Amino acid sequence: MPGAGRAAGVRRLRPQRPEEPPAREDEDLLLAAAYVSDAQYNRNVPFETSPRAIRLYYFYNHWTMQVAIYFFICVDLSLALFEEPALFPLPFLATSIAEVLCLTAFFGRLVHFAKVTPQMVFWKDTKNICIMVTIVLTLIDLIIYGSLEAVNIHSIRWSRALRPVFLINFPESRQIRRTFRSIRNTLPDILYVFLLFMFSVLIFSLMALKLFGVRSLKTVEGLPYFTDILEIAFELYVLVTTANSPDVMMPAYNFSRWYSLYFITYIIINTYIFMSVFLAVVYNNYRKHLKNEILKLAYLKRRKMIEAFNILKVKVGTEFVVTEAQWKRLAKIVMPHISSPHLELLLRISDEGQKGHVDKMNFLRLADLLNIQVVAINIKRHPLEDWMPRVYQSSASLLVQRMVRHRIFVWVYDVIILVNAIFIALDEKKPFISNAEWLFLSLYIIEILLKLYTYEPRAYFGRKQFWNWFDTLIIIAALVATVANATIQSAGNYNSQQILDIVLILRILRLLRIIVSIQRFRLIVTTLINIGPTILTFGGLVLVVYYVFAIIGMEAFQGKVWFFDPNFTTPEAQVCGNPALTGSAFARDHYCKNNFNDLASSFIVLMELTVVNQWHVLAGGFALVTHQAAKLYFISFHIVVVILIVNIFIAFILEAFFVAYSLEKSEVETAIEKKIQELGVGVQEEEMQDGKLIDNMDAKDSGFSGDDGDNKRKALKGLYFRIASKKYRTVDALLQQMFESEITPEDEGPSLDEILNLSPSDIYPKNPSFGNSA
Amino acid sequence: MPGAGRAAGVRRLRPQRPEEPPAREDEDLLLAAAYVSDAQYNRNVPFETSPRAIRLYYFYNHWTMQVAIYFFICVDLSLALFEEPALFPLPFLATSIAEVLCLTAFFGRLVHFAKVTPQMVFWKDTKNICIMVTIVLTLIDLIIYGSLEAVNIHSIRWSRALRPVFLINFPESRQIRRTFRSIRNTLPDILYVFLLFMFSVLIFSLMALKLFGVRSLKTVEGLPYFTDILEIAFELYVLVTTANSPDVMMPAYNFSRWYSLYFITYIIINTYIFMSVFLAVVYNNYRKHLKNEILKLAYLKRRKMIEAFNILKVKVGTEFVVTEAQWKRLAKIVMPHISSPHLELLLRISDEGQKGHVDKMNFLRLADLLNIQVVAINIKRHPLEDWMPRVYQSSASLLVQRMVRHRIFVWVYDVIILVNAIFIALDEKKPFISNAEWLFLSLYIIEILLKLYTYEPRAYFGRKQFWNWFDTLIIIAALVATVANATIQSAGNYNSQQILDIVLILRILRLLRIIVSIQRFRLIVTTLINIGPTILTFGGLVLVVYYVFAIIGMEAFQGKVWFFDPNFTTPEAQVCGNPALTGSAFARDHYCKNNFNDLASSFIVLMELTVVNQWHVLAGGFALVTHQAAKLYFISFHIVVVILIVNIFIAFILEAFFVAYSLEKSEVETAIEKKIQELGVGVQEEEMQDGKLIDNMDAKDSGFSGDDGDNKRKALKGLYFRIASKKYRTVDALLQQMFESEITPEDEGPSLDEILNLSPSDIYPKNPSFGNSA
Repeated sequence: MPGAGRAAGVRRLRPQRPEEPPAREDEDLLLAAAYVSDAQYNRNVPFETSPRAIRLYYFYNHWTMQVAIYFFICVDLSLALFEEPALFPLPFLATSIAEVLCLTAFFGRLVHFAKVTPQMVFWKDTKNICIMVTIVLTLIDLIIYGSLEAVNIHSIRWSRALRPVFLINFPESRQIRRTFRSIRNTLPDILYVFLLFMFSVLIFSLMALKLFGVRSLKTVEGLPYFTDILEIAFELYVLVTTANSPDVMMPAYNFSRWYSLYFITYIIINTYIFMSVFLAVVYNNYRKHLKNEILKLAYLKRRKMIEAFNILKVKVGTEFVVTEAQWKRLAKIVMPHISSPHLELLLRISDEGQKGHVDKMNFLRLADLLNIQVVAINIKRHPLEDWMPRVYQSSASLLVQRMVRHRIFVWVYDVIILVNAIFIALDEKKPFISNAEWLFLSLYIIEILLKLYTYEPRAYFGRKQFWNWFDTLIIIAALVATVANATIQSAGNYNSQQILDIVLILRILRLLRIIVSIQRFRLIVTTLINIGPTILTFGGLVLVVYYVFAIIGMEAFQGKVWFFDPNFTTPEAQVCGNPALTGSAFARDHYCKNNFNDLASSFIVLMELTVVNQWHVLAGGFALVTHQAAKLYFISFHIVVVILIVNIFIAFILEAFFVAYSLEKSEVETAIEKKIQELGVGVQEEEMQDGKLIDNMDAKDSGFSGDDGDNKRKALKGLYFRIASKKYRTVDALLQQMFESEITPEDEGPSLDEILNLSPSDIYPKNPSFGNSA
Repeated sequence: MPGAGRAAGVRRLRPQRPEEPPAREDEDLLLAAAYVSDAQYNRNVPFETSPRAIRLYYFYNHWTMQVAIYFFICVDLSLALFEEPALFPLPFLATSIAEVLCLTAFFGRLVHFAKVTPQMVFWKDTKNICIMVTIVLTLIDLIIYGSLEAVNIHSIRWSRALRPVFLINFPESRQIRRTFRSIRNTLPDILYVFLLFMFSVLIFSLMALKLFGVRSLKTVEGLPYFTDILEIAFELYVLVTTANSPDVMMPAYNFSRWYSLYFITYIIINTYIFMSVFLAVVYNNYRKHLKNEILKLAYLKRRKMIEAFNILKVKVGTEFVVTEAQWKRLAKIVMPHISSPHLELLLRISDEGQKGHVDKMNFLRLADLLNIQVVAINIKRHPLEDWMPRVYQSSASLLVQRMVRHRIFVWVYDVIILVNAIFIALDEKKPFISNAEWLFLSLYIIEILLKLYTYEPRAYFGRKQFWNWFDTLIIIAALVATVANATIQSAGNYNSQQILDIVLILRILRLLRIIVSIQRFRLIVTTLINIGPTILTFGGLVLVVYYVFAIIGMEAFQGKVWFFDPNFTTPEAQVCGNPALTGSAFARDHYCKNNFNDLASSFIVLMELTVVNQWHVLAGGFALVTHQAAKLYFISFHIVVVILIVNIFIAFILEAFFVAYSLEKSEVETAIEKKIQELGVGVQEEEMQDGKLIDNMDAKDSGFSGDDGDNKRKALKGLYFRIASKKYRTVDALLQQMFESEITPEDEGPSLDEILNLSPSDIYPKNPSFGNSA
């Protein structure tokens, strides 16, 4: 992001003007709110500070605009489904009009951005140049292709491979861009390891040629074994991926036991050691650059908050502060939907002494405070208790409630789920078993009803009660599907396989409820869910790479291989409609449906290549129907996706786990939690989950009503707060908070240029002996 | 190691006795030397401090005893080669006598150990108990098997699987034991992840049964597809290892495109996410426990050095010190072969002020100083210069020398190597090419001769000049082999294929010389060589696991599958001599030689299982010839070796790389290096490698002879020192030095019990925010 945050660098030291006209003040507030909002969401878009530009900037960041741009990106990318070779063919005119529409939208977004950001910054930013160049290239390609098509000459729509550029280069795709940068930064380091690795493969190829080439051995297919150096190099590269082990060894091993030593040496050196070194290099670089980028973000955020503070500050006594009124207005602008108890809570944390103003140190935390989701729980009694208190409080009813809250209740249902699993595994054709299905369903529904009877329903279905929602949704879905299925079945002989499939899957997914009742399982799943959002970033990255490779693959391999119905046993069907495949492993394994004849098929082939196994069979098949050079396409896919992206994915998961292990709570959250506890309005998450919520509430409630001395406490009465995000947090956020906790409130960080030019080596001196390895 | 270092805990505060009788003093020196030696080699064997026990302890640690015990362990393990099913059959009597001999040796070693160590410690140590129990069990098994054999009843030699116990449990195998402990410590954490993973596999199996079981689909082999729940669970477990992708998907995918979603979901969840989580858990535990154990070692070492100091200290002025004479005698006992200049150098580092005694702080460093290999280089002029100075210094000779030292000389030879590579790749049947071989050989020999002419031969072949040795040995070996081959060929028509193979391999290995001339390649290879010793530890670990699995595998599967010559095409040969294999993938892929009919074959099969690919075919084959339950053997092998050991291996390589990246030089080494430079007797490693050694030497030598004021400097004259170990160092050593540099000289560390009970969580508070994740 060259030039990012430049506007933030413009120091605005304005004199104190309490008598400023309101309009001017409003503008200042808007500007400060823009800084705070940018800090909150880690946006680093430099923007002009003129009132008009700020308003445009608000509009630019509005969620509708973001949704719109993602919608157009989706449309643009999915055009490949309708273009030749199409899954759902549409005429060229239709797709080209859609594409032009998308391009117009992208151009509009860019113009909007140019209005917001300073001219110099705009033209220096490679992202913007990239988008413009891509738009122009796409238009040129459209015109050429269209005119050639008009005179019936078929050419290649090469600009389609450029479409992911839009996904990468809009400012919203920060994460994907970062991963790409991470890959780019890794390249120089990995290059030498890769060259050495290729050198090793070549040395071994030469040896194989000399050792086995003269033996006139035969492979299982009866082909000559290890006679051509290029063929050998390819086979040995495949062996690194383990995809042809042990087949590639067998002819030599059958000839003499000693030749196995050659292959064992090869596998130890190239498969185990070199592949681990690749992971080490990728991981090391990932870590280094991740830290660097996040430190940058932390400093930029700090600068933006200081900027906002400088705009709003007034002098009280000896220090500059922000008045309570201003602070509240600011928070309302940044977060329009904030509830007033929540705002009150934040104010009390920021203005600890209740002096009517917020000092600099507390002001700088505002962005973090706003980022923490605080769920306000309106504690109410169970509705049934209000409606018919006598029945609900009767001894029978209390017994039921105690029963439901008991541990044994959970265990009983665990056993029921297990029995259900066995029933599912058995054949459901027998009427006894299909009737049992209804029994289980009703047992589950009874469970939910009992829980709703015992716990306050609004608390039970609180906004962040993930596991309760999970539990209930699964059962309701299964109920609906089963009823729908039964209805359709009884209505006639028609038995919809699709609905039956869904019913079956939902029935089995119900077994997942067992996770809910085993604490350790729930912990692991929660950790996995926490890293979910960043895994989605990888989804974006993989989508980009897949898309480019799919477009190239479709242009190169479309129509070379055809799928025939499995019952079709003509000789043509046996060789996937291409005689070149006769006798190949591709045809023998019936891989005909693994082709590049449309986007969906291409993606599935690429997925199979990512999994690696049998990729040489696929590569060999497509090389047979085109040219041996086609193998380069598959090798480069392997290098890009498996050696780079999958390793980065593993590096990411490792790092996420280590960060999760090593850090329990961040600074800021603890401050909020402390305040919540101090005010006596906190709810422990564990209490919520164990279903003791209401009991505790009641106890606290009664204690509460006793002392009404504090006016402010009254305002919060009847409300309980819970920090919802405790378990929902990403590596990025954790690392950023770690860095922020190291920046002292007085520290304004290095200058903007220094921040933007931070390099990974600058970070290390800060953590002397243990830094890297502890 | 419960109780390890206990003797070191006995505080010996003895009064100063300068008039002590010499015998008594000798004993004290011996004891102190034993402590220093233990500290130097990180031995933690508690020993009795009586003079007799110390002498026994010296004998116990003598290298001949260590070699002897490893010899017997090797013999014991290799017995499996000669026992039924044997690679080289020997009668039962012979192998059983050899085994009893080995057991006697092990028992003798144990008795020796019992004499050295305090009784209490000996009986508390599980290692010793393990060895004794194993000896007894093996004897019982031998007797039972022998007597049953005598009456012709064939039974199982089950105690053979216990043999690796000896390899693990002798104190010398510290590293292997540590890796085993690391695995054991990881188990509880990994167990829940594994259970959740199995649960996920089962859920998916149920879904597969319901979705695909009723479709009556067929696999490529024409077998029913996904109809049996156990079969499905196995197939899906195999899919986690990616070994049967995409074949397992194809029937469903051919039926409907949508079913691919099921498999994609499965692969993302189970193959990518769960396998990464396994790696993360294993890695995290490995790191945690590695740190803990090494911190323990560092503290124990410190205690031993303090112990030694307390024995030898005398009071000089206000502080306790060790006299120079005592210090020298101690060093001579610990390292009998130390050269006197080396000893002088160490003394000058330890006694910086040349006060005639060594203070406590410097004494504590002794073990580390002794561990650093300092190579003394006797600088002499080139022999030719002595013999015929006029010729060697003539302008023609100097031109040759300048030429050889020039960069272009290296480049010319790089090009020659590349041309050679092309010639090797071509067909060597043509006389032109086989003659070129002689040309290349002579070019290489000329290169070496020129280098020896230019550089001082003893410096060029210095003890640690790895790359020079490497270069020369490869060429000499190729020369010898080629000459031998030519001699044999010209002697008659006999053309030994074995010798030809070796010649070919050596000829190709010559190409490795290119690594020497590319700096970046040399760096990567050096890093890999550095972690070599620890990779050997993994070799030991893998050997243990392989051995146990091989013994079990041989008992279960021997003789079920037979290998026939590939040219043999009888129906029996087609099914590996077992009709049960008819139509199986095992027979189709000609895997007959992958059997458990002897130890060597078993190891190769296990290696193939470690590489994972096609392991389900092997498992399926052996299940067909025995029972479906045999698959459990293969699954457990996969869990132990691939999920645990290979992940620990990857964790180790990652950690080794990170430590190597983050640490440049350790404290102690820098102290020595500083001293060497201060004394003007240092040689830069780079100078050595660039071949400028002699030039510098000459220059320094002449400057040296000028001032003879310092007596001590004279003693070192003509000698140059180089720290040899700079690049040869392990993760362990690095980590230990990191911890040691954090222990201040005054710090005597926690008490012994505290050291022995250190748990990983105790380490972390020392490295606050960044500890784990930086």
